[in-house]
Amino acid sequence: MDYPNDQAPGAPVRSGIPEHGRIPKYYAVKARIAALMEELGHGSAIPTERDLAERYDVARETVRQAVRELVLEGRLRRQGRGTVVAEPKLEQPLSLASYTEGVRRQGRAPGRTLVSLDRFPCPAALAAETGLTVGEPVWHLERVLLADDERAGLESTYVAVARVPRLDTAFAPDSSFYAYLQAQGISFGDADERIETVLATPREALLIGTPPALPMLLVHRVSRDIEGRPLERVRSLYRGDRYAFTVHLRG
Amino acid sequence: MDYPNDQAPGAPVRSGIPEHGRIPKYYAVKARIAALMEELGHGSAIPTERDLAERYDVARETVRQAVRELVLEGRLRRQGRGTVVAEPKLEQPLSLASYTEGVRRQGRAPGRTLVSLDRFPCPAALAAETGLTVGEPVWHLERVLLADDERAGLESTYVAVARVPRLDTAFAPDSSFYAYLQAQGISFGDADERIETVLATPREALLIGTPPALPMLLVHRVSRDIEGRPLERVRSLYRGDRYAFTVHLRG
Repeated sequence: MDYPNDQAPGAPVRSGIPEHGRIPKYYAVKARIAALMEELGHGSAIPTERDLAERYDVARETVRQAVRELVLEGRLRRQGRGTVVAEPKLEQPLSLASYTEGVRRQGRAPGRTLVSLDRFPCPAALAAETGLTVGEPVWHLERVLLADDERAGLESTYVAVARVPRLDTAFAPDSSFYAYLQAQGISFGDADERIETVLATPREALLIGTPPALPMLLVHRVSRDIEGRPLERVRSLYRGDRYAFTVHLRG
Repeated sequence: MDYPNDQAPGAPVRSGIPEHGRIPKYYAVKARIAALMEELGHGSAIPTERDLAERYDVARETVRQAVRELVLEGRLRRQGRGTVVAEPKLEQPLSLASYTEGVRRQGRAPGRTLVSLDRFPCPAALAAETGLTVGEPVWHLERVLLADDERAGLESTYVAVARVPRLDTAFAPDSSFYAYLQAQGISFGDADERIETVLATPREALLIGTPPALPMLLVHRVSRDIEGRPLERVRSLYRGDRYAFTVHLRG
């Protein structure tokens, strides 16, 4: 294979093949399947494992490992009994706006399903991160995030009961929590976010419907109202194979 | 194990153990090692694989798989012949400021080593992303990013030769490219960034010194100067086990 300079600037240089040194056989196959995917285009089925093994003259297990990584990265996806070239990742803006708004901006229908809503005394770790008082009652609202009925992620929101005392009775858990806050006269002032990559736990994989140990994007948020008082602590987990975050930066 | 509500709000709910259903044996061991790590604290060595296998009454391969995931996530790190509890991830702010500034803010010394500096006609894919003209000469500057001499990531910068004609002779490749731009009277206006998670390719793993297929954080940037003209296209890959990004959001 050649490594011309006309590749997409977002792709790994030299398709990830080192200038010197050897690469695992499965990776050479992965690079060739990736080149084939470029030709086929989104939504097209790739040949079967057996066909690919014959074409590249390698063992089926070698093809399987290459395909597994491409699926983990969201570049291929399983469809029925076949495997097709995946669509580009969905882009969720990093902003004070809600999940709802971000999904709508992509022309998709947001949704949520309730996992649990618990009430308990604020533990020390949560108090330290938010400025809430140890022992004051807090809600933990856990929901699966949906986009066009596809499970996109899992969200844990921690908020003081004093802020939203009737969350358990007056709030529809499949609706926007931010819209509910606004209806209570609570406005967001600012937030600190931290983004990292983690592996999905078995519980998360089960709830979101992904393979366990899939690399995920995890966003931690601590937000405050316009008076600077603590509002919520959110842990949002997004499928790493389906989502990217975008942000616009100004000087 | 109990799953009380007093855990850190950033940790997976129920340590990732589903309410119903079975989990792989290695994951149960992983959760127990993670609990042990909490007690030990950063920098402490965990017991050997043999000791852990005896303690939890499982096969050594089961312990090995649990430890492998904890290492991939950056929660454990290899040190000499042992394995220690890793320090928290380093935080790199998402901002128009340079890598240099971000690393300095963490009290660490930034550095870079040159991989390559090439000059070639702007390919169609790069032109489409940046607004540069197909065929106009562009530089591709590829460097390994360092923090306190530890390899942190790999950065590809694409910039028009017309902007910085003497990049190959007047620029010290171990210095800040942004400082160089400023010295040429070029100021950043704004940038669009996209953040995703990908697996390290063999070439990237070799250059950064990580295991191949480690989950990485990849930042794509397209920036413009204060007149809104295209400035650079950057592809920055950061070790997913060592880095997190932070952003402050305002309403």
